[in-house]
Amino acid sequence: MKILDCTLRDGGYYTEWDFHQELVHSYFTSFNELPIDYLEIGYRSNPMKEYLGEYFYCPDYVLEKVKKLSNKRLVIILNEKDVRPEHLDNLLSPCKGFIDMVRIALDPENLGRALKLAEGIKRMGFEVGFNVMYMSKWKQYGNFLSQIKEVDGVADYFYMVDSYGGVYPQDIKETIDLVKQRTSCKIGFHGHNNLELALINSLTAVEHGAAIIDATVTGMGRGAGNLKTELLLTALNAKEGKKVDFNALSNVVDAFENLQKHHGWGTNLPYMVSGANSLPQKDVMEWVTRRFYSFNSIIRALNNQKEKVQDNQKLPVFQPSKKYGQVIIVGGGPNAKLHQQAVKEFIRTLDNPCLIHASSKNAANYEDISADQFFCLVGNEGHRLESVFHNLSHFNGQCVLPPFPRKMGTYVPAAISDKSFELESITFTDRLQDSHTALALQTALALGAREIHLVGYDGYQESTISQLEKNLSDENEFLIDAFKKSQGPSLHSLTPTNYKNLPVASVYSYLV
Amino acid sequence: MKILDCTLRDGGYYTEWDFHQELVHSYFTSFNELPIDYLEIGYRSNPMKEYLGEYFYCPDYVLEKVKKLSNKRLVIILNEKDVRPEHLDNLLSPCKGFIDMVRIALDPENLGRALKLAEGIKRMGFEVGFNVMYMSKWKQYGNFLSQIKEVDGVADYFYMVDSYGGVYPQDIKETIDLVKQRTSCKIGFHGHNNLELALINSLTAVEHGAAIIDATVTGMGRGAGNLKTELLLTALNAKEGKKVDFNALSNVVDAFENLQKHHGWGTNLPYMVSGANSLPQKDVMEWVTRRFYSFNSIIRALNNQKEKVQDNQKLPVFQPSKKYGQVIIVGGGPNAKLHQQAVKEFIRTLDNPCLIHASSKNAANYEDISADQFFCLVGNEGHRLESVFHNLSHFNGQCVLPPFPRKMGTYVPAAISDKSFELESITFTDRLQDSHTALALQTALALGAREIHLVGYDGYQESTISQLEKNLSDENEFLIDAFKKSQGPSLHSLTPTNYKNLPVASVYSYLV
Repeated sequence: MKILDCTLRDGGYYTEWDFHQELVHSYFTSFNELPIDYLEIGYRSNPMKEYLGEYFYCPDYVLEKVKKLSNKRLVIILNEKDVRPEHLDNLLSPCKGFIDMVRIALDPENLGRALKLAEGIKRMGFEVGFNVMYMSKWKQYGNFLSQIKEVDGVADYFYMVDSYGGVYPQDIKETIDLVKQRTSCKIGFHGHNNLELALINSLTAVEHGAAIIDATVTGMGRGAGNLKTELLLTALNAKEGKKVDFNALSNVVDAFENLQKHHGWGTNLPYMVSGANSLPQKDVMEWVTRRFYSFNSIIRALNNQKEKVQDNQKLPVFQPSKKYGQVIIVGGGPNAKLHQQAVKEFIRTLDNPCLIHASSKNAANYEDISADQFFCLVGNEGHRLESVFHNLSHFNGQCVLPPFPRKMGTYVPAAISDKSFELESITFTDRLQDSHTALALQTALALGAREIHLVGYDGYQESTISQLEKNLSDENEFLIDAFKKSQGPSLHSLTPTNYKNLPVASVYSYLV
Repeated sequence: MKILDCTLRDGGYYTEWDFHQELVHSYFTSFNELPIDYLEIGYRSNPMKEYLGEYFYCPDYVLEKVKKLSNKRLVIILNEKDVRPEHLDNLLSPCKGFIDMVRIALDPENLGRALKLAEGIKRMGFEVGFNVMYMSKWKQYGNFLSQIKEVDGVADYFYMVDSYGGVYPQDIKETIDLVKQRTSCKIGFHGHNNLELALINSLTAVEHGAAIIDATVTGMGRGAGNLKTELLLTALNAKEGKKVDFNALSNVVDAFENLQKHHGWGTNLPYMVSGANSLPQKDVMEWVTRRFYSFNSIIRALNNQKEKVQDNQKLPVFQPSKKYGQVIIVGGGPNAKLHQQAVKEFIRTLDNPCLIHASSKNAANYEDISADQFFCLVGNEGHRLESVFHNLSHFNGQCVLPPFPRKMGTYVPAAISDKSFELESITFTDRLQDSHTALALQTALALGAREIHLVGYDGYQESTISQLEKNLSDENEFLIDAFKKSQGPSLHSLTPTNYKNLPVASVYSYLV
């Protein structure tokens, strides 16, 4: 059984393929002391439009430097979708003498094209690895399975890649059987760790005949990450007596753990849900790492994907028949309930006001107001509306949803589907467009607000423990700033608030 | 299959069983919406001498509060080793009406005593769970296996506890078979996550007939922690359609992830090594959480435990025949090499000097000095000595080791065993006694130093990437402070240093 460590290649998803010199040095010199066969150092690629760093292109001087540092067999990988046979000379000729194996990352649909590419690579004298994605769905690709036999004599390793991180040991056995029936090529396995199954899946693969396993230090890799090299080596050391220099191992682990503190790869609830349900990870990684969305929003979106919630039908665009100069936006904070009597008194003093419920949490407290009422429906808010109003048949507000298409998903109760509309666009920010507050502020604009009064925007208190609340508060703070910069209607809070960027005009000051 | 969440009970190892009110509230209200059967809230215990908090004792008002908050069956656990039948009335009478199940955590050696305890608990009307530790070693307890049948009719659940976190699915199958042959009691499994096998082990246990599984939110629990409740629920939701409210789940996960940032539970290389080799976790948790030791030192100690390195034989106590007023301590930093010419010049100006090599890293550079030389042997330093001096047969220094017994392990090359001695004690600090610097400073005291000159104590630079170096630097800073407070000989650095608490007297200033 061989081991391939692809920390720099797969970890690059977190660092845009740039790594500190010291880290690279520590990586290669530590691995010189460790029982690993191949090190995959990065991609070689035609120029891309976005910024991608050193180990995405592996220029010649990198190949030379690494070859000097390392005593291992070295590997680079190509993205099949971006490389054609005519690119090979340019991409791979400089690799001769430095690189031992070239791997191809491919969608099973493109196996035919990949085979042609592989033949070219083979002719140039490299070992060839096929990293075939989406193994949990291979059975759905009839053509692919029947083509597998053609890799014989072309590929040195035929990898099963658990792209979603959702396969179980039983799936490994079944898929290896499928592959073995069709090719005599050596089998590899690249496991993701969404469900913390990367180790047992890899050991199961080896038990059933896999010849090579991928791993990365601290599991660094796209999304939830990979099998941890240190875990695999520790297990093999204890189970089979594989000789491991734990000083070298802890040196390299230390170095990457430091980086992990900053980037935070590894599994978490959103990755677990996407893995368990074979949902694409790319969105999840963006949501998780950019931190614009709370875990709650991500889980909601994934759950919607999973349950195929049909929320993305086009709704009629929200076109209010009437304008309201004075708009009260009711948030979800306890102060909207606590100060409700004063707020209602205040509303009575206004000429032609309306209410927008950013969240329905406090809506029942304002049911008895005669002013027109609008409800922001984001994600699961429809469920809350049902539970707040019990019987929606008497509901006489209007619901407003984010613009189409809505990635984060929205549930519209059947009873109010004829009272639900979507905004045409969010104009004052291009971030967080799916949030309650963005929706409420944009609705206020659509309603012609000249003055916006916030109620129940209590914000975050230092003693509050939930990260969720902290996230929401950060999101709202950002949106308040964006709205103020857009020079729209004036904005202030009537009730106590911890948002430092939100001006306050006490509701009681209006009642004197 | 039932699920028991024991986050507060097992997580308490990290918080001394104190939790914020808000966290507790969020925990119980979130779980009201989740498909979990039992919540184990903590221990009940006789008074202990160390500080242990609210959920270690679960006073009556806690029982009442939790009962009001939660709609689940509630559980407390007793430590068998600390509880006798005569304590039951005092410990458990107040639990009546609040607590449904009482579990007993026990060493398999004490099964007989636990059975008597269980009978008393059963008579008081509680369900009874046996949490039997060390399942990976049960086969070594002959008596225990033959006694298992006696739990019939006494225990409601008989738990296999993977105390070391080192069992594999195959071990689960075998142990369940052993248990099933002996008792008809319902079987439970409590898995630890050192090798990231808690999920697959738990699912395997259920597949082979286990009736109940333990889990904790974010895996919070002693050492590497447990099966993650969110992982188990996500897997069961996807595999079997178990209904999970992901809003409630992400709320409670968010709350504990916040706490995890502070305490940092979860597996890492030291826990992997201890788990894979069934080594006791208690030491490892202390080493890891207190952060006195680098990962490297911990791995070294574990490796020594595993390989039963015989380093703990008593050596002759270090009793120098001669005193040296001027002591140079050579550290491992590059400046000891860089400035060696000046340092050697300086040594020649001294009356009766000697050298202590805290690390052997720079020792070769000072081989040509005629002054007496002493070498600190900590952990693997003996290996370095061998590689620095190639042929130790000409070695004419003396080696000094930490006082007996040496937990962290020390390797003494055979060629110099007659030149190796141990210190009687470390007098100026009771922390970090196994470190190079503690050893070097204490050796200086033993040698009668009036003035200590440090060389190559370069310290940590902000740009340095390794956590290891940061740890070592923190340790040294602490020791320098401790030594200064002990009002021993004067201490300064001759070469450039980043240690802010270390006075500097440039070696060049002495040469003018």
